[in-house]
Amino acid sequence: MKCKRCKAPAVVALPSHNTGFCPDCFDLFFTRQVERGIHSEKLFTHEDRILIALSGGKDSLACALVLKRLGYNVTGLHIDLSIPNSSQAARGTVESFCSENGIPLIVKEMAQEGLAIPDVKKRLNRPICSACGKIKRYYFNKTALDENFTVLATGHNLDDEIARLFSNVLRWDVGYLSDQGPLLEADSGFARKVKPLFRLSEYETANWSYLQGIPYHYAPCPYSQGASFTSYKKLWADLEEEMPGRKLAFYLGFLERGKAPFVRQEAVTGDTLAPCTSCGYPTSAEVCGVCRIRDAVAQQD
Amino acid sequence: MKCKRCKAPAVVALPSHNTGFCPDCFDLFFTRQVERGIHSEKLFTHEDRILIALSGGKDSLACALVLKRLGYNVTGLHIDLSIPNSSQAARGTVESFCSENGIPLIVKEMAQEGLAIPDVKKRLNRPICSACGKIKRYYFNKTALDENFTVLATGHNLDDEIARLFSNVLRWDVGYLSDQGPLLEADSGFARKVKPLFRLSEYETANWSYLQGIPYHYAPCPYSQGASFTSYKKLWADLEEEMPGRKLAFYLGFLERGKAPFVRQEAVTGDTLAPCTSCGYPTSAEVCGVCRIRDAVAQQD
Repeated sequence: MKCKRCKAPAVVALPSHNTGFCPDCFDLFFTRQVERGIHSEKLFTHEDRILIALSGGKDSLACALVLKRLGYNVTGLHIDLSIPNSSQAARGTVESFCSENGIPLIVKEMAQEGLAIPDVKKRLNRPICSACGKIKRYYFNKTALDENFTVLATGHNLDDEIARLFSNVLRWDVGYLSDQGPLLEADSGFARKVKPLFRLSEYETANWSYLQGIPYHYAPCPYSQGASFTSYKKLWADLEEEMPGRKLAFYLGFLERGKAPFVRQEAVTGDTLAPCTSCGYPTSAEVCGVCRIRDAVAQQD
Repeated sequence: MKCKRCKAPAVVALPSHNTGFCPDCFDLFFTRQVERGIHSEKLFTHEDRILIALSGGKDSLACALVLKRLGYNVTGLHIDLSIPNSSQAARGTVESFCSENGIPLIVKEMAQEGLAIPDVKKRLNRPICSACGKIKRYYFNKTALDENFTVLATGHNLDDEIARLFSNVLRWDVGYLSDQGPLLEADSGFARKVKPLFRLSEYETANWSYLQGIPYHYAPCPYSQGASFTSYKKLWADLEEEMPGRKLAFYLGFLERGKAPFVRQEAVTGDTLAPCTSCGYPTSAEVCGVCRIRDAVAQQD
């Protein structure tokens, strides 16, 4: 196969776009897809101060690198979960990536916040993943607001978004459906949230990361069974193979036509939030979930 | 396996309900599922005059038989498409079924309406299926209205509904999503439409038909590649196997939470219909699709 653009040998086949590219033209394609997503959904501008959550995985690092190269004002945020072995390696990857690419980095150590994940795990009777996710999202939001960033970015790709959308549709979860998308506007107590890689699949992001030589941290979390939504990703891989381009069409169709009805509905029936009486960040309870976890951990000492 | 209800040997396993039944108890289960659907969605009452579309396949005959046994006022409607070999056998099955079960039958012959399907097929450059479907739905509706029936029933089962719903969701077709469900209220020029088997899967309906000894017509239409939505049915079979009961939960969740937002949206943006200037039945064009097909067939003579 030859590169569609320059006729050099292609190294990345893209059936979803009915094309294939050499490394340089694939870089151009990838970058333009990101730019197109940023502009079409009005995610942010060059005036914004963007905080990007960096786990150390390929998606978040790829997202940070492409935004940096496009001249956006990007700062990294790494949450050090204090999980033995795992967290140290992830943090090291993020630190050297940021230093090599001239990206300022903020690190929040959960051990210092009274929320080291091994301690949280001891206090829970249920799997740790949802509590860990809650803690990370809380510190993403808190750091963005505390440090006056105008946008909080994450490295979610099209496959992540499709798996989540499909899961929300299977349950017809109107609340989540009304919020899902590459842009969640700022709201009282919540930073503006964006997902600049929403047009790019996992395959495309992995290829780009590899071709850019990004050294990323890949080790499944010792506490989890691996990524969620795995069976939906398999199902969507089959649907995509049957009709290339269907994933992107499903997601863009949702943004164009499917989402608005749920936003209207949620405006009528949605939950109301108020500041947590302990930390001041928004919650639907009196004390927010993270403060309750922190209290539970403190009690065990 | 033993019957969950009477402990006799079970012949029908129902993982989606975490149970299994002997023939008599399965009949009770099937009948109660139909009743539950009729009542929960307020499809019709014993005062209604119900016209049921009978193709000769197992679903429509099962639907007619269960409604008849439940004491509803049911009349069959068969559309004779005049397809060589195929139509004659289907019509024979329906006629003997209705006569054996004391169900009055109306037969509409498309040849007499200037719409014999082989003639229509000659005039079309595209596959016949969508035109044939349009013609059948037109005569279902027209006959129900002309003959003063209060309800038009079809034998669509849960798998049909799931495949259609899934297809509409994949395309985020707001118009179809706002209309989909086991009940479509009467509207100017449109009969009230119901699908009493919406809680029952194809497997359950096939088993019931077999156990009741319904002799149905099964021969793929010589003009079509077989049922539509086949790949979605396979996909949903996998999802159901992974989590029994998911199909019904997805469909009922749509009815409870997913549909209302689309109905609201469609009320704002939907198409307007007006009577066809030729036949008087509603259409979004000046002359309806069926009248245009009839004219095209007449011109070739």
